[in-house]
Amino acid sequence: MAPDIENIDLHIDYWNAANYLAAAQFYLKENPLLLVPLRPEHLKPRIRGHWGSAPGLNLVYVQLNRLIQKTNAQFLFITGPGHCSSAILANLYLEGTYSEFYPEISQDLDGLTLFCRQFSSPGGVPSHVSAMTPGSIHEGGELGYSLLHAFGAVFDHPELIAAAVVSDGEAETGPLAASWQSINFLNPARDGAVLPIFHVNDGKLSGPTIFGRMEDKDIAMFFSGMGYEPLFVCGNDPRQVHTELGVALEKAYATIRQIQQEAKEKGVHSKPRWPMIVLRTPDGWTGPKEVDGVKIEGTYRSHRSPLMDARENPEHLKLLESWLKSYHPEKLFDESGKLRKDLSNLAPKGSLRMGASPYANGGSLLVDLVLPDYTEYQVGVKQPGNTVSEPTHVLGKYLRDVLRRNPTNFRIFCPDETDSNRLSAVFEVTNRCFVARTNPDDDHLSADGRIMEILSEHCCQGWLEGYLLSGRHGLLVSYEAFAMILDSMASQHAKWLKLYREIPWRKPIASLNYLLSSHVWRQEYDGYTHQGPGFIDTLINKKGNVIRIYLPPDTNTLLSVMDHCLRSRNYVNLIIAEKQPALNWLNMEEARAHCARGASIWTWASNDEGNPNIILGCAGDVPTLETVAASWLLQKHFPELKVKVVNVVDLMTLSPPAYHPHGMDEQRFIHLFSATQPVLFAFHGYPRMVHDLIHGRPNPARFHVRGYQEEGTTTTSFDMVVLNKMSRYHLAIDAIKYALKGVPHLRTKGENLIVFFERKIAEHTT
Amino acid sequence: MAPDIENIDLHIDYWNAANYLAAAQFYLKENPLLLVPLRPEHLKPRIRGHWGSAPGLNLVYVQLNRLIQKTNAQFLFITGPGHCSSAILANLYLEGTYSEFYPEISQDLDGLTLFCRQFSSPGGVPSHVSAMTPGSIHEGGELGYSLLHAFGAVFDHPELIAAAVVSDGEAETGPLAASWQSINFLNPARDGAVLPIFHVNDGKLSGPTIFGRMEDKDIAMFFSGMGYEPLFVCGNDPRQVHTELGVALEKAYATIRQIQQEAKEKGVHSKPRWPMIVLRTPDGWTGPKEVDGVKIEGTYRSHRSPLMDARENPEHLKLLESWLKSYHPEKLFDESGKLRKDLSNLAPKGSLRMGASPYANGGSLLVDLVLPDYTEYQVGVKQPGNTVSEPTHVLGKYLRDVLRRNPTNFRIFCPDETDSNRLSAVFEVTNRCFVARTNPDDDHLSADGRIMEILSEHCCQGWLEGYLLSGRHGLLVSYEAFAMILDSMASQHAKWLKLYREIPWRKPIASLNYLLSSHVWRQEYDGYTHQGPGFIDTLINKKGNVIRIYLPPDTNTLLSVMDHCLRSRNYVNLIIAEKQPALNWLNMEEARAHCARGASIWTWASNDEGNPNIILGCAGDVPTLETVAASWLLQKHFPELKVKVVNVVDLMTLSPPAYHPHGMDEQRFIHLFSATQPVLFAFHGYPRMVHDLIHGRPNPARFHVRGYQEEGTTTTSFDMVVLNKMSRYHLAIDAIKYALKGVPHLRTKGENLIVFFERKIAEHTT
Ligand SMILES: Cc1ncc(C[n+]2csc(CCOP(=O)(O)OP(=O)(O)O)c2C)c(N)n1
Ligand SMILES: Cc1ncc(C[n+]2csc(CCOP(=O)(O)OP(=O)(O)O)c2C)c(N)n1
Ligand SMILES: [Mg+2]
Ligand SMILES: [Mg+2]
Repeated sequence: MAPDIENIDLHIDYWNAANYLAAAQFYLKENPLLLVPLRPEHLKPRIRGHWGSAPGLNLVYVQLNRLIQKTNAQFLFITGPGHCSSAILANLYLEGTYSEFYPEISQDLDGLTLFCRQFSSPGGVPSHVSAMTPGSIHEGGELGYSLLHAFGAVFDHPELIAAAVVSDGEAETGPLAASWQSINFLNPARDGAVLPIFHVNDGKLSGPTIFGRMEDKDIAMFFSGMGYEPLFVCGNDPRQVHTELGVALEKAYATIRQIQQEAKEKGVHSKPRWPMIVLRTPDGWTGPKEVDGVKIEGTYRSHRSPLMDARENPEHLKLLESWLKSYHPEKLFDESGKLRKDLSNLAPKGSLRMGASPYANGGSLLVDLVLPDYTEYQVGVKQPGNTVSEPTHVLGKYLRDVLRRNPTNFRIFCPDETDSNRLSAVFEVTNRCFVARTNPDDDHLSADGRIMEILSEHCCQGWLEGYLLSGRHGLLVSYEAFAMILDSMASQHAKWLKLYREIPWRKPIASLNYLLSSHVWRQEYDGYTHQGPGFIDTLINKKGNVIRIYLPPDTNTLLSVMDHCLRSRNYVNLIIAEKQPALNWLNMEEARAHCARGASIWTWASNDEGNPNIILGCAGDVPTLETVAASWLLQKHFPELKVKVVNVVDLMTLSPPAYHPHGMDEQRFIHLFSATQPVLFAFHGYPRMVHDLIHGRPNPARFHVRGYQEEGTTTTSFDMVVLNKMSRYHLAIDAIKYALKGVPHLRTKGENLIVFFERKIAEHTT
Repeated sequence: MAPDIENIDLHIDYWNAANYLAAAQFYLKENPLLLVPLRPEHLKPRIRGHWGSAPGLNLVYVQLNRLIQKTNAQFLFITGPGHCSSAILANLYLEGTYSEFYPEISQDLDGLTLFCRQFSSPGGVPSHVSAMTPGSIHEGGELGYSLLHAFGAVFDHPELIAAAVVSDGEAETGPLAASWQSINFLNPARDGAVLPIFHVNDGKLSGPTIFGRMEDKDIAMFFSGMGYEPLFVCGNDPRQVHTELGVALEKAYATIRQIQQEAKEKGVHSKPRWPMIVLRTPDGWTGPKEVDGVKIEGTYRSHRSPLMDARENPEHLKLLESWLKSYHPEKLFDESGKLRKDLSNLAPKGSLRMGASPYANGGSLLVDLVLPDYTEYQVGVKQPGNTVSEPTHVLGKYLRDVLRRNPTNFRIFCPDETDSNRLSAVFEVTNRCFVARTNPDDDHLSADGRIMEILSEHCCQGWLEGYLLSGRHGLLVSYEAFAMILDSMASQHAKWLKLYREIPWRKPIASLNYLLSSHVWRQEYDGYTHQGPGFIDTLINKKGNVIRIYLPPDTNTLLSVMDHCLRSRNYVNLIIAEKQPALNWLNMEEARAHCARGASIWTWASNDEGNPNIILGCAGDVPTLETVAASWLLQKHFPELKVKVVNVVDLMTLSPPAYHPHGMDEQRFIHLFSATQPVLFAFHGYPRMVHDLIHGRPNPARFHVRGYQEEGTTTTSFDMVVLNKMSRYHLAIDAIKYALKGVPHLRTKGENLIVFFERKIAEHTT
């Protein structure tokens, strides 16, 4: 055992105070320091909380405080097991930040009472770390993303160290397992550092953990193999564990600084051996040892709050009192309810307190992007549909210049598909990031690259979230189908943003921008597994004030949309665009106007003169192509039929304004789609969504939607629209069918034409 | 270097044949053995394929063939990089299985021509391994699940070894990274074995890989730490690599058999050190070394087919010819196009050929479950809403007996939540499975447990998929919100099933059954991150003949639904049910009838006598509770208003029959919902879905849907329905509002009542 660190007893007292408060929040609605004997009526009617990891989290917090005091370093605290929020709240309260953000929770008995009462109570604070929690960018509700958030936060923040407590249950998840490898992308000269603190308490909800049952030597090999230097701190004796953790933290800190300094002095030539800490302390440490003859401390049974029935069970009430009293709250706080001065002195000061970290309130650090004029990248369009370009290829040049002008606060995150999605122009100004051995044959690969490519959608998303939440900008590029891997993460980020927006002290952050390419209609080669537009469906269910969905029909609209998204704040923006050569429809001026409106009539593709027999709506590049072609076929073969084409670039404009701020008002909706005429709508994704969006609009049953019907294989791009009954011929046939009801005198001609178009389809199919 | 293995030259020739065919499929539509000089017109108009990993896959396949010949062992081949399907197809063709499944692809020149032509062509075979591929249970389109499928397939198949080729790009994904730990759940006495063959070719789409740039010693530590015994085979000299791999496979095989035998003889006391192979061969090995001065072999540039423009570029045509000729096809096949006899002798015979493995056509091994009579677990219901039970708690007893009666072909997979979801009765007959150190304090934990708990939704899903696809039955239990982690996996499995059903030789397999509990309306304690009903939205977009969605309103209906799902085949069944105490509505007889119909009028909760002013529809347990309560409130306070309650247990019955086989016909729909009267529908999930489902029904605009609106926090269960405007009071108010249009003479009373109910809500909120 190492010799005592200085002030060890004071630190243990501080820890006792944190443990006390972490537990007290579960139970007490009065008598917060147990100044009078505990009675049932002091207890909350509903006792809830997660105890198991709390003492471990408190230990780490307290010893980090000590390290910060010694070093004045900027630390960000990431709580993997976010369910143990009462521990974090306890520390925030003790260091004083909580009372600064929430003055009604004052540093006295009244404040303490409120503090305990609000926890996990209706109208109070949630049971998990949340956007309401000062110092936090990570909720830890859906487990698995703590390390990713930590790495994202320190990219391009050379001064910052993110201390990430990873729990051993969390470590069993896929995203967490992948994220250890993030050190292959961490540049010690340019980025900050992550200090993983792997908390192996050998408990999860109702069993032990894989790592809990591994030997130290095996855990050491596992992490050494990946390139870490693991430092072990294990035990259940407070003095020993505090001391060893204190020493380990100092050692880790020194190693981090040494790595960084060497990199700055000598350049980055290989992957440094970053320190990490493996912390083995008992689940529910210092809690009740046994209840009703069943072992609690040191087992998964500590996971939730022990003694939940203390209000009804006098024996458990006794146990609870003696457990809480074991921390001696009366010695830690003075009578007014204030933490003892010699203890509060242990916490860092000002913005060095982890609850006050500006990195955890990203908007406070956010610097606007310097954006090039996107119109300079336009493709010339003299006449709609006369020229061809590759939308993402052109966009690549714009993004190249965004990267060039913003060399320290913008990155692109992509699961190994930047080239495949034809954004290759970005490699004119930067590289893929890789901080390990590189070879002469490597293609644009270096330790200072700003294109973050790892074959893990989860890592890309988690890094980007951390990067945004700590005040920077970014873009995630993916094949459309595999974005569904991110359904739950995107959903959780949207949830975080929803709450974030409601908190006055949370400053707006850059939006999370998705560019999905190689989409369902143009994965004719990779086949059925690669054809999935379901990510739209996930996002659209999120709060309307958070999500935006764009389906630019061509290159110039894509440029305009991207510029708009990069300027926006606090949203999740989804852009779906193609990489394959496609027709250009709008010149820059028209594109800009179209995007500003979100949806417009394309008069040049229509012949209705204000009186359509059929309205052809479309959203998405391939649906637009088929729709314009269908309109052209109809105008050529059936000029008597009056066709109007409406293109939608901002999907949410379809929605009634009550459901989404972009929703167009009824007048405009009728201007576009009339109130009575049949509408045939070709949609990029699953058709059901459009049915919902137009619910509540006049006469919704006249809308007939075509889209992806889960048909596909390795085939041609045109066959994809045929298989899903969205080809120009299908649209033309359906348009005639729906229109004929209104123009019975054209029936014969219409029916003949249907036969003609059906023959066209048959020719293709055979 | 080890001494030569026997027949090394023949094996290399066989490998050449496989490499030749793997490449030929990309390019040739004629002249499949290059018997005449290669001309542009021999080439396909569209040249596509993934080359990089193919020679490595062929190497593994050939050497496994050799091992099978020596041992007569049952091997299942899992192709992680499924994009390299041309390699697998080549081997299937060479071993003869392909021609048995697809007789038109005969073992002669005509067959060979067709074989090459069909590859990645419209109407031909997909570019990825798929359900069409004999011997396959794994597509490898969305990367990350190969090892999980392998483990799932060998659980309870003691005689089987799954050889899983994991690619190094794939190894960067979260699910794959987590799945190495599956050995903690593999029982050597009861299960088969997985032999991971980690193919480190240092290439992915457009860059190197993390593992590609790690030192052997680091990779060794990484895997040793987890408990593997890694065997390295590295090089680019065919003779050396074939020999070393042959030796390594024999060694691995011997170790596996030894582990298994010891376990059978002495019991399972600790986690065995399972062998695995790390195979380092160059990306695009034996392919073109350089094209246009750029290095190809040994770099990520081999990933796709090199020389894609050989049709237009004469120089590339030359290169292509000399590359293909380098395998000397003319020496490997006879003039009739048949593989040389001495080579075809190398392949195993009959069902030992990996393409003929019965384990890869799970339905052929499937044994029906022996199911207890679910009605025996019923809760007594004399009168609706008079008693209370915990649906999943009761279901646990039924599942306990399913486990008891099916001790070798049914398992439950759950991310650490079996107890939390109150299925604890299952632990009366089995344990959690864990094949590593256990402690005396552990709760129902043993190496022969049949409850597969790991804190990874991905692992649970992947294991279950492998278990089902190889012919067994199972259930995945999860918190509802975190099922979204599985959106993409579930989606891919549904895609696999869609194709599977279309293939005559694929025998029906057991359905993938989800039981989601701790759902959105009852996660009032864990809060907003735990509230997400989005998994329904993902499944509903899949093919109607594959997916089924059940929302049983109470315990007896849950029992009936589960029995039904466990008997079904080739579906993905989603069941959402609660664990908290809730009112019982239907006795067993009624429940069974209700489930058979999918949706019924609840006359006992209605007062309409066939003439409703308002129809209250509901789907989901909490929506049903609020709906019945609303109906009761209305009947009490407003008996003049005629209310009809319709409950939907099988969600897809709402859909028109054209979209889903369960969709009810128009007559029945009108019987339930009338054709004209307003409907207020309380739904478990996001309301948009119901709007879509009823699209096409008479007068859809009269449907008003309430559901989850992304509002929530840590609060009470009742507050959840209030926040989302689906409480009984909200429903009663809205019911009156919508109904009043049809009964203007009741306006005054109705408006007064609205004020009364609004006051109730206000009382709750303040
Ligand atoms: C992805 C995910 N799956 C399941 C859960 C449900 N859950 C909440 S806490 C918990 C156990 C956590 O154990 P561990 O990560 O070790 O935390 P600690 O022991 O530090 O409390 C589980 C399974 C979750 N929160 N997230
Ligand atoms: C989850 C997922 N993300 C992205 C892709 C797109 N993709 C297809 S192949 C590939 C590279 C695969 O590299 P590796 O796994 O090493 O395969 P190999 O080198 O054996 O071809 C990528 C990124 C995918 N198929 N799946
Ligand atoms: Mg734990
Ligand atoms: Mg590879």
